[in-house]
Amino acid sequence: MKKMLRRILLLTGILFMFPLIAWAAEDAPTIASNAEAIKAVQTNADYVWTLVAAALVFFMQAGFAMVETGFTRAKNAVNIIMKNLMDFSMGSIFYWAIGFGLMFGATSTGWFGTSGFFLSDFTPDGDPWVLAFWMFQVVFAATAATIVSGAMAERTKFIAYLMYSALLSALIYPIFGSWAWGGLFHGTGWLESLGFIDFAGSTVVHSIGGWVALAGAIVLGPRIGKYTKDGKVRAIPGHNLPLAALGVFILWLGWFGFNPGSTTAASKDIALIFVNTNIAAAAGAILAMITSWVKFKKPEISMSLNGALAGLVAITAPCATVTPLSSVIIGAIAGVLVVLAVIFFDRIKVDDPVGAISVHGVCGAWGTLAAGIFNIGGTSATIIGVQLLGIGAAFIWAFTTGFIMFKVIDLIVGIRVSPEEEAEGLDYGEHGARAYPDFQIVSATSVAGVGVGGMKKEAWSATSRAPAASPSAGS
Amino acid sequence: MKKMLRRILLLTGILFMFPLIAWAAEDAPTIASNAEAIKAVQTNADYVWTLVAAALVFFMQAGFAMVETGFTRAKNAVNIIMKNLMDFSMGSIFYWAIGFGLMFGATSTGWFGTSGFFLSDFTPDGDPWVLAFWMFQVVFAATAATIVSGAMAERTKFIAYLMYSALLSALIYPIFGSWAWGGLFHGTGWLESLGFIDFAGSTVVHSIGGWVALAGAIVLGPRIGKYTKDGKVRAIPGHNLPLAALGVFILWLGWFGFNPGSTTAASKDIALIFVNTNIAAAAGAILAMITSWVKFKKPEISMSLNGALAGLVAITAPCATVTPLSSVIIGAIAGVLVVLAVIFFDRIKVDDPVGAISVHGVCGAWGTLAAGIFNIGGTSATIIGVQLLGIGAAFIWAFTTGFIMFKVIDLIVGIRVSPEEEAEGLDYGEHGARAYPDFQIVSATSVAGVGVGGMKKEAWSATSRAPAASPSAGS
Amino acid sequence: MKKMLRRILLLTGILFMFPLIAWAAEDAPTIASNAEAIKAVQTNADYVWTLVAAALVFFMQAGFAMVETGFTRAKNAVNIIMKNLMDFSMGSIFYWAIGFGLMFGATSTGWFGTSGFFLSDFTPDGDPWVLAFWMFQVVFAATAATIVSGAMAERTKFIAYLMYSALLSALIYPIFGSWAWGGLFHGTGWLESLGFIDFAGSTVVHSIGGWVALAGAIVLGPRIGKYTKDGKVRAIPGHNLPLAALGVFILWLGWFGFNPGSTTAASKDIALIFVNTNIAAAAGAILAMITSWVKFKKPEISMSLNGALAGLVAITAPCATVTPLSSVIIGAIAGVLVVLAVIFFDRIKVDDPVGAISVHGVCGAWGTLAAGIFNIGGTSATIIGVQLLGIGAAFIWAFTTGFIMFKVIDLIVGIRVSPEEEAEGLDYGEHGARAYPDFQIVSATSVAGVGVGGMKKEAWSATSRAPAASPSAGS
Repeated sequence: MKKMLRRILLLTGILFMFPLIAWAAEDAPTIASNAEAIKAVQTNADYVWTLVAAALVFFMQAGFAMVETGFTRAKNAVNIIMKNLMDFSMGSIFYWAIGFGLMFGATSTGWFGTSGFFLSDFTPDGDPWVLAFWMFQVVFAATAATIVSGAMAERTKFIAYLMYSALLSALIYPIFGSWAWGGLFHGTGWLESLGFIDFAGSTVVHSIGGWVALAGAIVLGPRIGKYTKDGKVRAIPGHNLPLAALGVFILWLGWFGFNPGSTTAASKDIALIFVNTNIAAAAGAILAMITSWVKFKKPEISMSLNGALAGLVAITAPCATVTPLSSVIIGAIAGVLVVLAVIFFDRIKVDDPVGAISVHGVCGAWGTLAAGIFNIGGTSATIIGVQLLGIGAAFIWAFTTGFIMFKVIDLIVGIRVSPEEEAEGLDYGEHGARAYPDFQIVSATSVAGVGVGGMKKEAWSATSRAPAASPSAGS
Repeated sequence: MKKMLRRILLLTGILFMFPLIAWAAEDAPTIASNAEAIKAVQTNADYVWTLVAAALVFFMQAGFAMVETGFTRAKNAVNIIMKNLMDFSMGSIFYWAIGFGLMFGATSTGWFGTSGFFLSDFTPDGDPWVLAFWMFQVVFAATAATIVSGAMAERTKFIAYLMYSALLSALIYPIFGSWAWGGLFHGTGWLESLGFIDFAGSTVVHSIGGWVALAGAIVLGPRIGKYTKDGKVRAIPGHNLPLAALGVFILWLGWFGFNPGSTTAASKDIALIFVNTNIAAAAGAILAMITSWVKFKKPEISMSLNGALAGLVAITAPCATVTPLSSVIIGAIAGVLVVLAVIFFDRIKVDDPVGAISVHGVCGAWGTLAAGIFNIGGTSATIIGVQLLGIGAAFIWAFTTGFIMFKVIDLIVGIRVSPEEEAEGLDYGEHGARAYPDFQIVSATSVAGVGVGGMKKEAWSATSRAPAASPSAGS
Repeated sequence: MKKMLRRILLLTGILFMFPLIAWAAEDAPTIASNAEAIKAVQTNADYVWTLVAAALVFFMQAGFAMVETGFTRAKNAVNIIMKNLMDFSMGSIFYWAIGFGLMFGATSTGWFGTSGFFLSDFTPDGDPWVLAFWMFQVVFAATAATIVSGAMAERTKFIAYLMYSALLSALIYPIFGSWAWGGLFHGTGWLESLGFIDFAGSTVVHSIGGWVALAGAIVLGPRIGKYTKDGKVRAIPGHNLPLAALGVFILWLGWFGFNPGSTTAASKDIALIFVNTNIAAAAGAILAMITSWVKFKKPEISMSLNGALAGLVAITAPCATVTPLSSVIIGAIAGVLVVLAVIFFDRIKVDDPVGAISVHGVCGAWGTLAAGIFNIGGTSATIIGVQLLGIGAAFIWAFTTGFIMFKVIDLIVGIRVSPEEEAEGLDYGEHGARAYPDFQIVSATSVAGVGVGGMKKEAWSATSRAPAASPSAGS
């Protein structure tokens, strides 16, 4: 067997430039062989679609990185992108080693899977579907992880971030996922057995990420200078809005993998999901713009960008089971909701630099409820009740485990950088680097944080604090 | 029916992680059932390809946003990205509500469709192809809309922009589209009945956008300081050329959806279209570089970038019906043409900050003519004549309706910002924001506009004009 | 024939909005016609997958452009993006005219192909597969070309760069490619006939690019100020790390076309390749971060980013023939290796501004060796020996021809800009432009180059050196 496989693989290496289809038989076709071949072609198309969709969802990592970098200050940009690079890298390894087995293992404790760690369900001569499915799932897990980073930006120790992102990918995300999506694999999953509708993860991915983010923002406390002693909220503007906008466009693109890819099949069903996804995002952006216009007298850019994301998050659960008209309504409500939620969290002094809790937590919950309300097949008190149960379970699970996790991390390594490092920026303190050494930077805030009018300008010297002569890759 | 559908959808929710193929029958296959199943698999592949292509075309929105932002000044960057976000969002809603019905409705006045508004042709248990087709078409409509924004950059009121982008997506673009592409749906369409060749929209999308942009630039007038009293043209350099280059790469990528996706079928035909698209872009970039080198003594970056776009626009009409060698020629001519056109429009004092009229209007017309000249099946005076007719009709329709539209908008809300706001930048005046608050910005121009040597430098204070403390999402 | 073709094409123009499948027969299906139709559908899926993958690989050009721009100085950013735009554009034309024929021509000298220039193997009524295959191959050729630009950044004359990129795409890359991949077309190819495993090009693309880059960096010599007289290595930090990070994410995405697309078939085989590609990149990023943390006391950003690329380069050869666990190991070793290689090349005073030689040359060699060691079908001294032979042949071929090429170019036009131009930046000297005219730039180095502490700050005037009033596209 091994020898044959090897020969095939060598041959594959040589032949790789031609389509490789092992037709069932080169003998005269029969009705049965044709039927087999048809299934094989459809399966091939399923692999292509699922994996192209996974690639699009992967690209959302770039989107999150750009949104979070753009919406925060220049002095923390290196830290943000390191966190985004590493939560995906750590997430890939930990979800491979542990998370996927907990979520989709073939055996289960009744609460989570207990097999399939390290992709052990795959054997070289076995069905590779588990690989395609893992690839699609790992980018979801990493999405949940990266959502948190935005809310905890500009003040979290890098080592603490690495620890939390491993724990989220390995434990918090997959265990909840097991309840909502794992049943077909291990036969258990209490939420889905009740009929919980969350097609692509408004709750499983976005709310879980959002509520862990809420726990993180609370444990960390607000950035220095964000809330003044006299109760004012100070805007700390993002340093690169074109980059943030690019991030939102990338995320919108990635969502065309996230939602329709969740069919994991090349089928007609993806058309409705594409349309719903797009139109909800559009409605979210417009309504958030209008809401910000009414509230702040100007059509505000960060609200409008977050409005598009709010629409996308909200349509994630119901995207396969509502009409386009419903999608417009769902997205529009999300667009209003995200602006109000951002104001609310500022009022209660939860400092979320990019609005991640409002976008992913709140609008994820709204979208999950909307999947019940606007269900194309009709709704009922039972359906709504199950949706509310899932929303509540996600909040309790993610907020509680997240809170405990951050408190434990704080005990072990400390979760927050020193005030001096926070004032100077995490780029230098955590990574010995500057994101923009050739540009004259104006510090947009200061430790004292005495409000907009009195901000101290510090022109950083790009050279006086350059990292000690280190080797030159990218330097 | 509803109940059954609901059960299926719930089941789908549970089963979504496995390929969902409803095989024609689980009974023993027959020749007929196999034939049906083959068609079903091909249809699935068509959906996947068309919608992946639509996702690529969607991503062109990011490309346009980056090109336009990079080619204009830092003080207007927020405004540019708000316009790009909103023309797609408004376009999605208005094309859904009105435009698609006018363009492809099943009934027609003889000039445009009269049904299918709000995607009413779709029913949950009907064929979802209309959804896939809408998704592909809406990103085309939005492309036409966003083309205009570049030519009108740095001086247009935001509210006026919202009005125009709704009107373009709802009326101007779809009515012309109905003439060239709508016939198969509503049985009329005078241009296509004459044999007009515009495979993917050199005229329908790009020239329409370009000529509306021309009308807009004329109605607006040039930016302050662009043309001096002594007849000199002053360069107003773009503020972020790496971002503009990224935008061009994104657009090039998106065109691999735009052109081959216009087959709306997974077929061998896409290979020729890919090759032609790529090679025309390459030739356009090279020839524009050479032309700029000859004209200005240096290989100029913005011309080279626009040369790639010029090649892409030109090959859009003929991409399916010319050889690769012809594509090289078509792209090369477009690369020369775009440089000459930019010089021409500056000579007649039409201020187009990003070169949109030259790239999309002029090269769109050239590409449409080229589709007749280089037609792989041979050409004739009739073919050329019809192409010229289409080119002329597009100009008359788009320029006239565009001109009227902008004049009316000007009457209602005023189309141009005040000179003070223009000098300070639209970001603060229209949106209360700065794109780069942490960077020291040097104003590259001034109201007086006395030419390169005498430009006044204003170091903006990133803090003194920060928006009033508003809630913190992305701030 | 021509007339019929033309009629079909015209019809196609009209019908393009509906799926275009020419079913084998509209007569009653037979077993044989079904079998034919199944093959046709699979072929259509192969085209879609191969060309979508090609589009993703194309997008790697944007990734390389952003990585190289971000990792170098602001004053050379226009030059970097012009080089990246042009190596793809020139590469497309030269690979079409010459390279593809040398690599995959149907006839051969025994060392390289001798037919198929200008895609002459394609006829309008012939099989378009050659076009799909060309499209996939041209983006590979351009990848090899663009790798070199990073190592030669910030000091190479633009005209010299154009010459070299044409020669690489036309001769150096395709001739080696003919030895490793061309056999099935022209029946010769000494490396593949020995059983050399390089599934997607760790050696053929990456090492070839990396070793030509090494030759280029040696011929050019280091940037002024990089190595001080007292033997110190001076860090010259990249000017825009968020852009570099975006580039790495784009490259990672593009690799999901590069590696699995090398099947050039829609098949189950792509799942393993996706997983291996992703997990090796993740392991590479993590291990490079850890290695930099140990070596430099901080988790260093440019090393971490290069670590992801190192993992991707290393997994490119073995991606189809190793397990996920092996991929983690291969990627992890690459992550360590890239840091050590960067240090090594700095020690021997080879100045590679972005680490391209280490990432592509060294890790390409490692990955090719790893394909032998971790071969899923078992390994042997013979397999290892052939891999080493291929690695050595690539080094000798690419370094030698590269060295000669650069020396000849140096003789003809001079390869390096003047010290004055290098100090001022190539953007102004080569292209008459500034990448960021609205920003206050701090020169991060000076001609004297007396080390970090003593660097001279020059605040460039964005206006005093603005290009002479040239026409306004993007300006």
